[in-house]
Amino acid sequence: MSSGSAAIDVAAGDAARARQLQLTKPPGSLGRLEDLACWFAARWRNPVPQAPQCEVFVFAGDHGVAARGVSAFPQSVTGQMVGNFARGGAAINVLASLEGCRIEVVDVGVASDEPPPAGVRNERVRAGTRDLAVTSAMTAEELRAALGVGGRCARAAADRGTRLIIAGDMGIANSTSAACLICAFTGTTPESVVGRGTGVDDAGLARKREVVRMALARVAQGGSPEPSRTLAELGGLEIAAIAGLYLESARLGIPVMLDGYISTAAALAAAAIEPGVADWMLASHRSAEAGHRFALEKLKLEPLVDLRLRLGEGTGAALVLPIVRAALALHAKMATFSEAGVSEAVDETK
Amino acid sequence: MSSGSAAIDVAAGDAARARQLQLTKPPGSLGRLEDLACWFAARWRNPVPQAPQCEVFVFAGDHGVAARGVSAFPQSVTGQMVGNFARGGAAINVLASLEGCRIEVVDVGVASDEPPPAGVRNERVRAGTRDLAVTSAMTAEELRAALGVGGRCARAAADRGTRLIIAGDMGIANSTSAACLICAFTGTTPESVVGRGTGVDDAGLARKREVVRMALARVAQGGSPEPSRTLAELGGLEIAAIAGLYLESARLGIPVMLDGYISTAAALAAAAIEPGVADWMLASHRSAEAGHRFALEKLKLEPLVDLRLRLGEGTGAALVLPIVRAALALHAKMATFSEAGVSEAVDETK
Repeated sequence: MSSGSAAIDVAAGDAARARQLQLTKPPGSLGRLEDLACWFAARWRNPVPQAPQCEVFVFAGDHGVAARGVSAFPQSVTGQMVGNFARGGAAINVLASLEGCRIEVVDVGVASDEPPPAGVRNERVRAGTRDLAVTSAMTAEELRAALGVGGRCARAAADRGTRLIIAGDMGIANSTSAACLICAFTGTTPESVVGRGTGVDDAGLARKREVVRMALARVAQGGSPEPSRTLAELGGLEIAAIAGLYLESARLGIPVMLDGYISTAAALAAAAIEPGVADWMLASHRSAEAGHRFALEKLKLEPLVDLRLRLGEGTGAALVLPIVRAALALHAKMATFSEAGVSEAVDETK
Repeated sequence: MSSGSAAIDVAAGDAARARQLQLTKPPGSLGRLEDLACWFAARWRNPVPQAPQCEVFVFAGDHGVAARGVSAFPQSVTGQMVGNFARGGAAINVLASLEGCRIEVVDVGVASDEPPPAGVRNERVRAGTRDLAVTSAMTAEELRAALGVGGRCARAAADRGTRLIIAGDMGIANSTSAACLICAFTGTTPESVVGRGTGVDDAGLARKREVVRMALARVAQGGSPEPSRTLAELGGLEIAAIAGLYLESARLGIPVMLDGYISTAAALAAAAIEPGVADWMLASHRSAEAGHRFALEKLKLEPLVDLRLRLGEGTGAALVLPIVRAALALHAKMATFSEAGVSEAVDETK
């Protein structure tokens, strides 16, 4: 992989901003939709960008820490849900289909002796991570392999002409791994960051907090590690693949739409490895998982919506694609004041 | 017009809630999308409702109070924008087209001696309201006529098979009228409610606040009036038409998606006239206009998004239609746990 992030075309963004002021509406009245159009203009190097071809990748991986009772679901659900994705029955399938997005399901590390079902890309680095409470979740080599899976997905999408990528996650217990990463990369305490994930009870929540404390203490023993070592110690194979996808997308100059808690933890890791990558990220939604906001704040990203989602899979990101399309359509298709013969605001200072 | 609002099918809503618990996701993890699906199920009397046919009506009217310098735009912009709607160049045209919604532009009271342009429905009750600072904006008869315009639009939409209606507004100075209505119906002060509308400067804001104070004091002189008299005194012809559309939609059992500040002021008036009407309303977005939240709180409505919009025309409502479609598609098309062979959450209390 090459390093760094693609440059942004500031002039195209400025030209888009100037166009917004000529559209038949009071200046600024389309709020964040105006900002979105200008954001994409600068990244697609086009003052009047068209609606993009989008793709969704769902990365699945298991977590050794699941054995500690930190999830409301048995570990076998990861593999079962991969089957559900393959058959088109999961939430992300419905949303990707609604939006006309290609979707690819990638097994980076499901804990199974069986190969993944037909239709699922087999990139299994290892059958689940080790237990991050007591040891490094991945070796440096496994991390490199998982990052590479995500990077190859981004390049394949680029080759297909995709201009906006969504990465989703599936992995029982991965909110424990994400909580560890958010604590490590933002300096926030486990008490603030650790939530119920997809629905653990009070006892499970207490176990989860204790596990995160143990893992953070373990990693802190050797001093402050490099970002990639933090990711190997505390991450997951699917989280590393998402981080790899974000890193490579930024290199290729392709924006990514973050999903929720897990993907934003991956985004934090990616931005710690390569700070410029955050310039290529949009935040789709604020998750119901309380710790999500610490990750968003660190990345200086403001989510577009808050609908109390906490599912993952890329669902929140796919849900806001129509807002992107609307912003771009308004930007490209509205009449200007002069085209429409509409008077502009009276400037009383003249 | 008949009175009252249609009944809600609680059993269909409960059946939808039960279905949500069987879909392959942790219970509640789709947040407000789950609530939306159940909300529509109860109103369309169908536990698994399909995506609706939607229509947008944009009601245009002028305001006598515009002469007091409460808007950044000259009054002629109302008519100019009606022309822009007719030619398809305005923001709401772009969004309605993107969503495949029929759009109808209705002149309820543009201040012009000319008839509206081709393609615009001519229902002009009067060429703009009187100046609400010093006299009743409308007579009782004019109010009745404007309410009737909206009611007829709702019935025509129902006859075309429409199951979700959006009403938008266009009227220079109508945020002054809306501020008066929100103050009158919520008891909030003009200081809190009156904002810059579509971009008035400091002097304009001060004039606007003074005008609202004058109007409220004038109306309060005769004691606390009936809701419909409040609407006649302080409203606008397009605002009354929107209120009439909401009232009739609720009678017909057709949900409406509120837009922003102006349409929510109309919703407040409608709910004051007939409280049951609020059961048929969804709030699309929280406007950048600060006073909007008082109206939403009074109606006990939580907006779906906040994108700092302050345009009107129905744009905020049209923008969230894909979120409705997504909620309904997820509800109808996701696999259940038993269909997909996915394990449910472990109940540790057993």
